[in-house]
Order: sequence, then structure tokens, then C-alpha cells
Amino acid sequence: MTKNIAIIGASGYTGAELIRLLATHPSFVIKALAANSKAGQSMADVFPHLRHLDLPALVTWEEIDFDQIDLCFCALPHKTSQEVISKLPGHLKIVDLSADFRLRDPEEYTKWYGNPHIAIETQKEAVYGLTEFYRNEIKGARLVAGTGCNAATGQFILRPLIAGKVIALDDIILDMKCGVSGAGRSLKENLLHAELSEGYNAYSVGGTHRHLGEFDQEFSALAGEPVRIQFTPHLMPVNRGILATGYVKGDPKAVYQTLVDAYKDEPFIEVLPFGATPSTHNIRGSNFVHIGVTGDRIEGRAIVVAALDNLCKGSSGQALQNANLMLGEEETAGLMLAPCFP
Amino acid sequence: MTKNIAIIGASGYTGAELIRLLATHPSFVIKALAANSKAGQSMADVFPHLRHLDLPALVTWEEIDFDQIDLCFCALPHKTSQEVISKLPGHLKIVDLSADFRLRDPEEYTKWYGNPHIAIETQKEAVYGLTEFYRNEIKGARLVAGTGCNAATGQFILRPLIAGKVIALDDIILDMKCGVSGAGRSLKENLLHAELSEGYNAYSVGGTHRHLGEFDQEFSALAGEPVRIQFTPHLMPVNRGILATGYVKGDPKAVYQTLVDAYKDEPFIEVLPFGATPSTHNIRGSNFVHIGVTGDRIEGRAIVVAALDNLCKGSSGQALQNANLMLGEEETAGLMLAPCFP
Amino acid sequence: MTKNIAIIGASGYTGAELIRLLATHPSFVIKALAANSKAGQSMADVFPHLRHLDLPALVTWEEIDFDQIDLCFCALPHKTSQEVISKLPGHLKIVDLSADFRLRDPEEYTKWYGNPHIAIETQKEAVYGLTEFYRNEIKGARLVAGTGCNAATGQFILRPLIAGKVIALDDIILDMKCGVSGAGRSLKENLLHAELSEGYNAYSVGGTHRHLGEFDQEFSALAGEPVRIQFTPHLMPVNRGILATGYVKGDPKAVYQTLVDAYKDEPFIEVLPFGATPSTHNIRGSNFVHIGVTGDRIEGRAIVVAALDNLCKGSSGQALQNANLMLGEEETAGLMLAPCFP
Amino acid sequence: MTKNIAIIGASGYTGAELIRLLATHPSFVIKALAANSKAGQSMADVFPHLRHLDLPALVTWEEIDFDQIDLCFCALPHKTSQEVISKLPGHLKIVDLSADFRLRDPEEYTKWYGNPHIAIETQKEAVYGLTEFYRNEIKGARLVAGTGCNAATGQFILRPLIAGKVIALDDIILDMKCGVSGAGRSLKENLLHAELSEGYNAYSVGGTHRHLGEFDQEFSALAGEPVRIQFTPHLMPVNRGILATGYVKGDPKAVYQTLVDAYKDEPFIEVLPFGATPSTHNIRGSNFVHIGVTGDRIEGRAIVVAALDNLCKGSSGQALQNANLMLGEEETAGLMLAPCFP
Repeated sequence: MTKNIAIIGASGYTGAELIRLLATHPSFVIKALAANSKAGQSMADVFPHLRHLDLPALVTWEEIDFDQIDLCFCALPHKTSQEVISKLPGHLKIVDLSADFRLRDPEEYTKWYGNPHIAIETQKEAVYGLTEFYRNEIKGARLVAGTGCNAATGQFILRPLIAGKVIALDDIILDMKCGVSGAGRSLKENLLHAELSEGYNAYSVGGTHRHLGEFDQEFSALAGEPVRIQFTPHLMPVNRGILATGYVKGDPKAVYQTLVDAYKDEPFIEVLPFGATPSTHNIRGSNFVHIGVTGDRIEGRAIVVAALDNLCKGSSGQALQNANLMLGEEETAGLMLAPCFP
Repeated sequence: MTKNIAIIGASGYTGAELIRLLATHPSFVIKALAANSKAGQSMADVFPHLRHLDLPALVTWEEIDFDQIDLCFCALPHKTSQEVISKLPGHLKIVDLSADFRLRDPEEYTKWYGNPHIAIETQKEAVYGLTEFYRNEIKGARLVAGTGCNAATGQFILRPLIAGKVIALDDIILDMKCGVSGAGRSLKENLLHAELSEGYNAYSVGGTHRHLGEFDQEFSALAGEPVRIQFTPHLMPVNRGILATGYVKGDPKAVYQTLVDAYKDEPFIEVLPFGATPSTHNIRGSNFVHIGVTGDRIEGRAIVVAALDNLCKGSSGQALQNANLMLGEEETAGLMLAPCFP
Repeated sequence: MTKNIAIIGASGYTGAELIRLLATHPSFVIKALAANSKAGQSMADVFPHLRHLDLPALVTWEEIDFDQIDLCFCALPHKTSQEVISKLPGHLKIVDLSADFRLRDPEEYTKWYGNPHIAIETQKEAVYGLTEFYRNEIKGARLVAGTGCNAATGQFILRPLIAGKVIALDDIILDMKCGVSGAGRSLKENLLHAELSEGYNAYSVGGTHRHLGEFDQEFSALAGEPVRIQFTPHLMPVNRGILATGYVKGDPKAVYQTLVDAYKDEPFIEVLPFGATPSTHNIRGSNFVHIGVTGDRIEGRAIVVAALDNLCKGSSGQALQNANLMLGEEETAGLMLAPCFP
Repeated sequence: MTKNIAIIGASGYTGAELIRLLATHPSFVIKALAANSKAGQSMADVFPHLRHLDLPALVTWEEIDFDQIDLCFCALPHKTSQEVISKLPGHLKIVDLSADFRLRDPEEYTKWYGNPHIAIETQKEAVYGLTEFYRNEIKGARLVAGTGCNAATGQFILRPLIAGKVIALDDIILDMKCGVSGAGRSLKENLLHAELSEGYNAYSVGGTHRHLGEFDQEFSALAGEPVRIQFTPHLMPVNRGILATGYVKGDPKAVYQTLVDAYKDEPFIEVLPFGATPSTHNIRGSNFVHIGVTGDRIEGRAIVVAALDNLCKGSSGQALQNANLMLGEEETAGLMLAPCFP
């Protein structure tokens, strides 16, 4: 039986990625697409790569008749997202891709994002959307808050290790290398091809990246004590991909076995043989995560590397995976596309 | 009902692309994968991006039990392909992706490829694989010869115009810009990242590129007289994509209308509004072709631009489209993946 | 003896390129840098790659004391450039990099650029800045109008052929492939890395690109009759480089010899052996031009390919070459940097 | 007064980079170029970007008349380099760019490079070529061993900090991101454009990269006790550049001040303002190093990021800097080219 889907914020990269994935979904049908700044345009105008699809024209979100919608993806920027979602029908199932409902503590939200939260009651309904670790809660949720793409990548490395108590908690470093689409379709000088291609740099160094709010919340809850990690993102001259290199203190074989056990039944997470290292080349355009563990020459230290596609598994793919669960579909529906290589 | 598929030459890019497409095909099942130089290895070793799939290990093609195979893709280099195909069971349905069976005249084959043809009888069975123009023949064929990727792109522009007699035949120029995966997984200095990225150049200038053999054969047959076009390929620092800029003499509006009429029922070919120009960004990773027509400021001249993905529509996607027809499946099965942008 | 140099419009790419070249110039000293929108900032803030240089801070152009300046480069956008230059001291030597003084006919200027020309008298002083063909005029000029980067590339191919009457004038095609820095440091969606990398497209198709104004002016003057060529630019996913593929009708050997003769004493123009093809890889970051000629398989047709760096020889390098001439320096001073490969 | 220079191994990337730099050197003249596998060819054949230079044709190194050579650069692969250098005239001044003379302990050499050292006596003459720290020894040296490109980058971060005792020695991590030209002009599958562009991965994870031999030797000598760091390189889809992200334990302000003091008189090393982060974009094609220090949100931890061009400052630029010292030239001669951006 088909389900009717709406997307608010369809003119950004995560909106386009949702449509790409839904294009071959067996039961979800796109009924409405909203992008207030481009209302009236066709998706073929905004994203010509989708022109072969028979899609509804863009409208404002206020124009959508939500009575006929089974689930709504909200792919707006943070701050705007909470404003819009707080006005949507209270029974509407929603997967939000913004940062607005990820942090349970409104003060943490304000600390990391600068603005006060205006939908605190709605936030209380939200389930954190890291599917592999919140699967049951997501199945019954009305509102799911998609995770940050970096936050997802880091958690795929660290959650089992923290929960399994196989690493030291006070000395965790994530050195992350991120493709540029994570910054969205925004007109900034440093995102221009001429400024970005052929080079790379660190940014938000020293513990200032917003996704640390998610790491702090989730790792502290898991550990039952405050956990603070070091996390340094780097902007890479590629469009898609996140590679996280995790430096942890613990026995490499125990680290490896813990990850193997944690993910052995997961359809999208591949733990490579011990000593093998993942590459973003091998997950591009897909919902898969590759994880590799290696021991350092210094005893008691392990390097764990994880790769995923920030737009797919890190954002829109995760969102669809959650929507599948919320609507009683096969969790992998529409998501088994193989990576696009070369 | 499922159909059993074999792929010979599975360790190259077109082999990998076939597997990527077959990964979500509704009825084709991969029963055997051959790559003689890598027999014994798993596909996860050879192409880690396919490691999530449950695929047979690589064998030599001689080890395949063809009795259980409904159709075999042959993704070998030219020359090797004819040697192998001439030894396969005579009733086996085959889609060949090499150049070996594209040219009907063995002398033309030798002229363009340098070696004599050793499977001339088999060649006589072969149907030229440009689906949109040989659909009926392909449905009944035992052996289909996939077209060259450049040859396909150029023909999508020119066949309707030549058949429709709307352009001059003695003054046709195709300036083509080709992604590097068209050269295959071959270890050549000019294909190294350090040599290719950040720059570009023409090659095979002056009418020496092998795909001219196909243009000559097909356009002359269509026109009923010898047609010789100018064709200059350029190597681009991208992995996927062909953009052909065609310079023709004829009325732009007639050119446009002829293309619109030719492709109005084609599921994979999109003719853009008059004056719009396609981009390889918008077809990457997909089986779609975008075509745009513009009139020049000089009267009686039109510029026709076409874009497709050389590995997909230009090679493996076309091959699967043909296999669908040969086995009585829906022509579009497994091929409706949306382009991967950004 | 040192000469004092000012640059107006120092915060754009051509301004930065001028400073890069002047960094090792034997006698020119940068005395003033203006960028009205960024006045007060240091060049290290605006272009950190220049932070090792001891440069004056950015000021507004109105703040420059032109009495101490021997020559001023003006690297402003067109329209702004004429407004500023018309207010500069009347005796000041100026090399303008904008389009504002390239076209001698004000109506042509308005036709291609949309706005009326407000400095028609100043325009009359301007010498067209294609050094190799206007060397003597440039030596005595007060105001030199730098050429368009595409216009320069095309003229290096075509001027000797038109002057030498070795090609047909009514059937000339330039298919051009242009790096993105030619579009400047401007915040446009299609210039974002995520939109541009990994793909390419034609633009300004059909005879609408502004540099056609220069082609028309120069080629018609050379031929003594109106000449209209076809010119189609393509946006390439690289930062620097223009490759022009010229399709002409004429004897290839005569075409070749004409170019060899024309450029045999030129320090920056290299005509490759007959049949060789240039690559933008081989001129990147330099003031050199590589030109190659090949005969087509169709008799009487030649393909001429030229490559140069749009920011250097196509703009700031040419500007410095002209400034050298205007100030009586060695023409090649500061310009003999070898290309940066890989 | 001019000095006569020879280059052995001129057909690789570091050889080409030496020639690029020497092209504008005020007093060094290239008298001989050797590349045994390409002897007889011109440099224009092997590296067309150098075709404007009047260079000697390639010969075998045995053909060079070393009596007329003041200094010889040896840009051969390791192992070959020691074989050749041990046969060169004993008084010839040599700058070696290979790994063969970097490690003073022959057992360490064998451990990291696999082969026994066959020129142990010659090794004893060698001075480690990290100019900023071995300047006086280099001035008087006959043989200078250029450092590894990663080894140089890491030492620019860590040497002053170890010498200044401002960081803990047992917990140092270098996460390094390296452009592909560091791998040389070698035909390997993972260096192909189609395999490398648009993605990235870690390699030599866990303390297996050969440059660790240099880190161990140099840091232990500096500290007066064995020092073992963690070092993980990542292969980046760019041609030039190394960015090292160093994670150290120490007071960030003390770390910063130590680096500022160490480099305040160095012509090529720029320490950015506290909290600023370098980018490989800003040093590409130049001999400059940019270093930035930031404090982490966790007290007592600092992140130090350094960027340099692996081919220039990491290899050929360093080599020329050393040659300048060895021949009594200005240390910066030929090396003040500004970075090439964009």
C-alpha cells in the first residue's frame, strides 16, 4: 500500500537527496514539495537532475494539505525548522533533518546554536534519529530528529566502545574529513570551486563545532558520566563523504571485536577485516557505513576509521530509514542502492 | 521469475557498473562472475564498494557452467572479447560491451582496431546495441554488440537529424568532452590523478578515434550515402560523463522539433526546452540522456549538446537495457536510479 | 630603477594574480592596494596565500596618492572600471583589466554589456592590449585595455590565419573550455564546488558570449570585411585554464606554417610540432601559450588547439607584460615563472 | 657568478619541480639532466610544461662530466639512489632527495625500507636536510639528505615543542593529509584519477609509515630519550599539499609562543595568529610553511596544524634551499615564488 510523503525544504541538497532515494522506493509517493523561496518553480528548474521524475511543483509549506500526508520530511535550516514544525498539525509524523530537535536540553541547544529554542514542548516528543541505536523508539515516534552527519559518523565508531567499556573515556580524538555538501547549497566564499578544490583545511578547531553538543549528550548518557571528546573537522575538496579517524586508548582486538559484535546484524554497517581501512570512495552515493580497526605500534592504542556519505547515511538516507520504520515498511526500502564508483 | 546472469570481465569498471545496476534489479540474479586475472578473489577485494552484496567469487570464464545461465554480459577488452565469445555455447544469449562486434565490415574493424577479426561468422549474428534505434532487432537477438560510449552520445544527437534530412551531411562537427573512466582501469601515465586532475586536453585529433568507425557505418547507412563527420574527443578531469557539442548546419527550430519528435516516447532521453543546455552534472550515475538545442547567431546553424554517463547509459546501462529486452523484462528494470547530484 | 605600482581592485582573483607576479618582479614595487569594499583590511586577511609579502594595507582608491605612482593596474568589474578610471589623473599610466575599454565602438559596448559607456573620450585613448599584436602601440600608450581571456585565446589561434588568408572566413568555430576562475570571486550557485566539480556544461551558447564583441571587432578589422565566428564556451571543473579547439577550413600545413612564422620570435608562445596537442596542464600558473595544429581526415580542414592560463596570460600576466612595455622594462620581467605541474 | 647544476632522476616529479624552481634562479645553471630510462629524450617530451626552457637533453647519469658540475641533485628512488651516489666522484657536492641517507642507523634503514644499506660510509658524511634546524651543518656539508615530506611537516610542528619541553612526549598524534604527488609518477591503481578523485582514505595506519623512522631518530635525539609518536597519513584527492593536524598535551599559549619564537626569523615559516588555521590552498606551489595553534576546549590540550607543499618545501624546494647554502648563495634564491592561488 502506498504512503503519501511531503518534503518541506525541497530546494536544498538534503531535499534533493531524499527525492533521489524516493525515486525508486517501492511504496512511498511524493505528494507535496515545499520550498517557500522557490514556490511556483518546478523541481526540474531547481534540480535539473531530477527532471525525468513526475514531481509536484514547489509550493509554500503553508499550501500543503497535510490531511493527505502520511509523513513529512522537514529539510529546513535549523531555527527555521522549529518555527515551521511547531505550526504543523500535531498528529503529523515528521522526520526533521535539521539540528533543532537533536538536543534534549534547551540550554545546550542555545549554547551551541546561539538562538533560544521556541518549541520546547515539541522537542520533548522528539526521538534522536540514529537508527541503529534508537530503532524501537523510532518505530513508535511521531517526530524523529535526524542526527548531524559528523555526529552520526563519530557515534558509529564510539558508541559500542563506550558502552562496552573497552576504551578510556578521557582521551578520545576524532579527526574528521568532511565533503563540502555538508555545508549545504549556501553562497559562501570558501565553498566556491576556486577556493575549495585542490586544497583543504581544518575548521571549528578546538572544540567549537556544533555537533559536539550531540557527542556530549549521547556519550555522557551512555557512559553515565560526563564525556568530552576532541573533535576537529576538516573541509575536503569532494562533494560527498565523511571519513572519521578515531584515536582511542584500549586494546585494538577488543575494540575490533566490540564493533563486530555491535554491527553483525546491521544491514548498512560493514566492519572490515582487522587492519583494513575504509575509503569514502567505497560508500559514495549509498547508505552504507564502512568501519576499520587497526592497532597502533604503541600498545594499548587503536585507530578506528569510519566512512559514510554525509548526504545519504549522514542525513537523507538515515531520514528515509527512520521513515520506513515509522510507517511500518521494510527498514531498507529504497536504500539498497550500491555506491557509485568510480 | 528470476533470470540467471553471468558477467565475464567483472574486474573492470564496466563490470562493476553492471553489478551496481543489477544490485537493485527486480528479477536478474548474478550467478557467476569471471575475471581470469583475478580468479579466486572476492569482489569485495577487487571492488570494496560492492562488499555489502552477496556475490559469487571470481572464477575464470572457463569455469562457468553456462547451462544455468540465461544471459551473459561480456565486459572484456576488444580482441580478447571475440576470442572468448567465439568459444562460448552457440545458443547463449550475450551482451558484449567491447568493440568487437560493432562493425559489420571486418575490414573496417581491422582498419580501426589494428587486428584481424577472428570471429566473422559470429559477428554476422550481432545486432548493434543502440537500444532506441534497434529495439526490435535487439528483442530477438542472441548477440548484441554494445556501442562505444562516444558513438552512442554522437548518435543520439545526429541520427534523427540525418534521418530527417534537416542538416547538411558534409559539415558536421562533434566536439566531445569525456570523463576518464572511459579509458578503463588501465595503468597509464596520463590517467594518473597527478597528471589528469586540474587540466584537460584534446586527443585522437583529426579523425583518428576508433569510434569514428561506428559513426561512419551508422550514418552512411542512415543517409544512404557515405557520411564522414569531424569528431574530436577531449579528456576531462572527471570520472563519469560525456558531453558532446554538435555543430550542424540546418534550421535550429527544425533540428529541435526533429529531436523532440524522435524522443518523445523514450523513457531515458530528455530533450530540454529550446535554448537550454545540458550538463553532465545532471545525468551522473544514471541511464538518462539530456539533449539541448540552441540556434547560433549565424542563421542556419544549430548547436546541439548531449550529455550522458559513459559508464552507465554509454556502456553498462545500455547493456542492461538490452538484456532486459532480450529476456522479455521491462526495458527500464533496474535502470530508473536518479542521477547522483551533487 | 624601481617603478611604483598601484592596484585598484586588489581583492579579486586578477588582483591577487598581479601581486603573485609582482612578488618576484625585479623593479616594480607595490606602493598602493585599493579595494573599496575591504579597505582597512590587510592582504593577509583577504588572500592568506600572500601573507609572507610586505604589502601595503588595503585602502579605497580615492585614498591613493597617484603623484607617486608610475603605473596603475585597474582590476575592477566592468562598468565600475570606467567610472573609476574617468576620475583618475589624466596623465596616469593605466592598464585596465576590465572589459570597459576593449571595444572601440560605444554602441558595440552597449550591445554586449548592456550599459551605456560613460567615458567615451577616455576610450579613444585606449590601446587594445593583446601584446603580441599591438606591441608598438602599447609602448606609447597611456591606457591599455586588457583583452578578455577567451578573446585572447581565440585570437592567438585565428589572427595569423585570417591575416594570412589561409582559412575560410565564413566557417570558423571555436569550442572553448574555460576554468572557473574566469568568473571571478563571485557568489553564484553554479560556481560552488558542489555544483561545479565532477561535471561540465556549455554556456552562452549560440553566439551570446560578450567576448564575441572583441572577436568581431578584431577579426573584421584584420580581414577588412565583417567576420562572424561561432564561439561556444564550456565551464570546466578546474580553477585555471582555457583550451580552445578551433575548427577551420584551410590547408592544415599552411595553417601550421602560418602560425609557426607568426610566433617564431615570441617569448611566450610555443607552437608544438605538427600533430601534437596542447594541454592546460602544461601552462598552468604561467604566462605561456601552447598551440597545436592537426589536419582532419577530411581534406582541407584543420583543427587548431590553444591553451593558456586565463588568470595569467589571459589577464594579469598580459597586463604585466603590457606594463613592462609601457614603463620601458624588459617585456618578460616577472613573467618567466615555469608552469606549476603537477 | 654562475654555478653549474646537474640533476639525476630528472624524469620524476621532484626532478621536474627542481627545474621549475631553477628556471628563475639568479645564478644556478642546469648543465646536465639524467634519467637513465628516458635517456635521449628531451625534457619537452617528458614534461611538456618545461618546453619553453632551453634545457640539455636527458642522458644517463654515467654520461655526465662531473668535473664541470658544482652541485648535483639526486632525485632517484630510494635504494637506487645509494647505488648511484656511491659511484659518484667523492668530492662532488650532492643533495639527495631520496630516503637513502636520512637515517643514521643502518639497521633502522633496513627496518623501515626492507633492503640493507650498501653505502654506509657515504651515509656517515650525510647531513640531515631539514634546513631550519641543520643550517650550519648544511653549509659545510658535501652530502645533504633531504627529509621525507611528511617528516618535514611533522617536525616543523614538533621540534620546537619537544626541545622546549612544553608538551608531553608520550601522547603525540599527527593526523596527516597528503596530496598524491608524494607518491611520485608511479603506475599504481590507487593513484589513477578514477580511483582517487572525489574520495580519500587513511593508509599505513598504526605506525607503519616509513617516515616514522625519521620522526623516531630526530625526536629521540632532541628529547634525549626514546620518543614514539602516532602518525596516520591519509591520501587526498589533490596533487600538492600536506596538512598535518597535531594533537598534543601542553598549554596552548605556551605551545604557540614556543613556535612563534622558534620561527620569528625564518623566511619561509609563517606562524599564524593564535586560533587561525592554515590551509594547503595558501602554500600551493611555494616554499612556505603555515602553522596555526588552537587550544582545545579541554584544558591542557593544543591542536597545531601545519601546511606545506610536499613537492616544493617538502622536497625540491628544501633541496634548493640547502643547495643555496652549500654553494654560498642567498638561502632564499629562486624560492620566493608566491603560492599559486586559486
